[in-house]
Amino acid sequence: MTEQWIEETLYDNWGQRFRVTKELARTKSPFQDIVVFESESHGRVLLLDGVVQITERDEFVYQEMLTHVPLFTHGAARNVLIIGAGDGGVLRRVLEHPGVEKAVMVEIDGAVIELSKQHLPGIAGDAWTNPRADVIVGDGIDYVAKAADASFDVIIVDSTDPIGVGEVLFTDSFYQHCARILTAEGLIVNQCGVPFMQADELRETSERRAKFFPHVSAYVAAVPTYVGGFMTLGIASKGKSPVGQDVNTVRTRAQDAGILGNTQYWTPEIHVGSFNLPPYIAKHLPKADA
Amino acid sequence: MTEQWIEETLYDNWGQRFRVTKELARTKSPFQDIVVFESESHGRVLLLDGVVQITERDEFVYQEMLTHVPLFTHGAARNVLIIGAGDGGVLRRVLEHPGVEKAVMVEIDGAVIELSKQHLPGIAGDAWTNPRADVIVGDGIDYVAKAADASFDVIIVDSTDPIGVGEVLFTDSFYQHCARILTAEGLIVNQCGVPFMQADELRETSERRAKFFPHVSAYVAAVPTYVGGFMTLGIASKGKSPVGQDVNTVRTRAQDAGILGNTQYWTPEIHVGSFNLPPYIAKHLPKADA
Repeated sequence: MTEQWIEETLYDNWGQRFRVTKELARTKSPFQDIVVFESESHGRVLLLDGVVQITERDEFVYQEMLTHVPLFTHGAARNVLIIGAGDGGVLRRVLEHPGVEKAVMVEIDGAVIELSKQHLPGIAGDAWTNPRADVIVGDGIDYVAKAADASFDVIIVDSTDPIGVGEVLFTDSFYQHCARILTAEGLIVNQCGVPFMQADELRETSERRAKFFPHVSAYVAAVPTYVGGFMTLGIASKGKSPVGQDVNTVRTRAQDAGILGNTQYWTPEIHVGSFNLPPYIAKHLPKADA
Repeated sequence: MTEQWIEETLYDNWGQRFRVTKELARTKSPFQDIVVFESESHGRVLLLDGVVQITERDEFVYQEMLTHVPLFTHGAARNVLIIGAGDGGVLRRVLEHPGVEKAVMVEIDGAVIELSKQHLPGIAGDAWTNPRADVIVGDGIDYVAKAADASFDVIIVDSTDPIGVGEVLFTDSFYQHCARILTAEGLIVNQCGVPFMQADELRETSERRAKFFPHVSAYVAAVPTYVGGFMTLGIASKGKSPVGQDVNTVRTRAQDAGILGNTQYWTPEIHVGSFNLPPYIAKHLPKADA
């Protein structure tokens, strides 16, 4: 039997490859190519248009940092909007926060949800059936355009890179509506790529967010299969700046939520420290908070 | 013309690959296979036994963290021993510290030095001819066995992984001699691999170092081409614990050395924060400082 490898096609001159144990799904939805396979090294892997979205083995890094950082930065979020994140991993982490009364998740591609339920059930766990979850198959940009003013405390955007189906989630219009539907102390987080390879993504989204939010910055996470060093998660807030948080406040919030000690990557120290950007990344944040 | 790719062979079921513009050298020294090539994505790349050692584009991350962290942790290092690091990048960064009077570098493979001088001249810069540098082609384990007691303030071990030629640099005997030849406040740093893929490397070297040093811990760096999330750099000290340093002290030392503001990854905040390990890494440090 010949060995099978799958090569990520995100960059045309560098990338990662996985030895495949078994291909579980390969389909074309109305929005994108979807592949799920079993790897020897990382458990099951979800690819969208050839780009790694999540692996079973390292998903905790991305999910914890994308979820716990904004929620513990806010400190009292009750209504959370998730855009994308069709694998359900962010939804699961959001629902771990007992203060969250409602988590609305809007994923454009129902096939991603269905394939994740079928092949990656451990990532969402029982989040799909949680009564606090409202899972909508629909367009994120349409959803935010129609949502009421000040209806959410935190918005988490777990999109693909700004090509293909995810592109509208990086526009002025999208961020403008997000600012409108956030409460006074509300904040938005979105993935901004790996600056070592995709510096434009961080720079351009930061400039766009700065048009609608007084505080725009970013924090970093070292996600094993988003190769290329730190990825950045952009954060913008209407109220207080998220930079320079007090580690004891963060720890107390995590303790109260029952999350302290139950994470594999996130800690209060890493939360606060992740806003300290290496200069090679910070230079792409034109309007970063001091 | 067919396109040429070089695939890293560090792991047999996952890894990175580079599109090759031009192969510059491919040889077999008495110690290892050596390849230098020009990549489209990362400038020139050095491979030893199929494993990426350094690329021109991201070398700053590894070099800065491997050098500035121990030197600014110590604060008054005059004599520094470098084991390995045949590309000269660590030597260059050590010599940026004006307080360093002598940097001895012991690299076992003269071919790595020669090929680096020829094909990667920017990595060492003019370090090779610096009068404070003493570059020895020889065996690191022999060197530390013969060196006088308390002759160095800092030892930096920039080895390959503990297979092949680098294996002796992960033994009890090596660490025992290192402890002996360090001054009372001396400390040693060594690369401990990428724990997401190579957790044993961190665990085993930490246990070995704990036999000879009162303080054993590790810090992290996100090196783009050491794929797999954070790599760990093990640190062990005879005097004070390196954990919980004061950021202002580190900043003052960097300011006095003329290095503050002249780095691309290292900052005082990242220096101090890099000792905050994600739980998935910390669990492999059996005798870590609190």
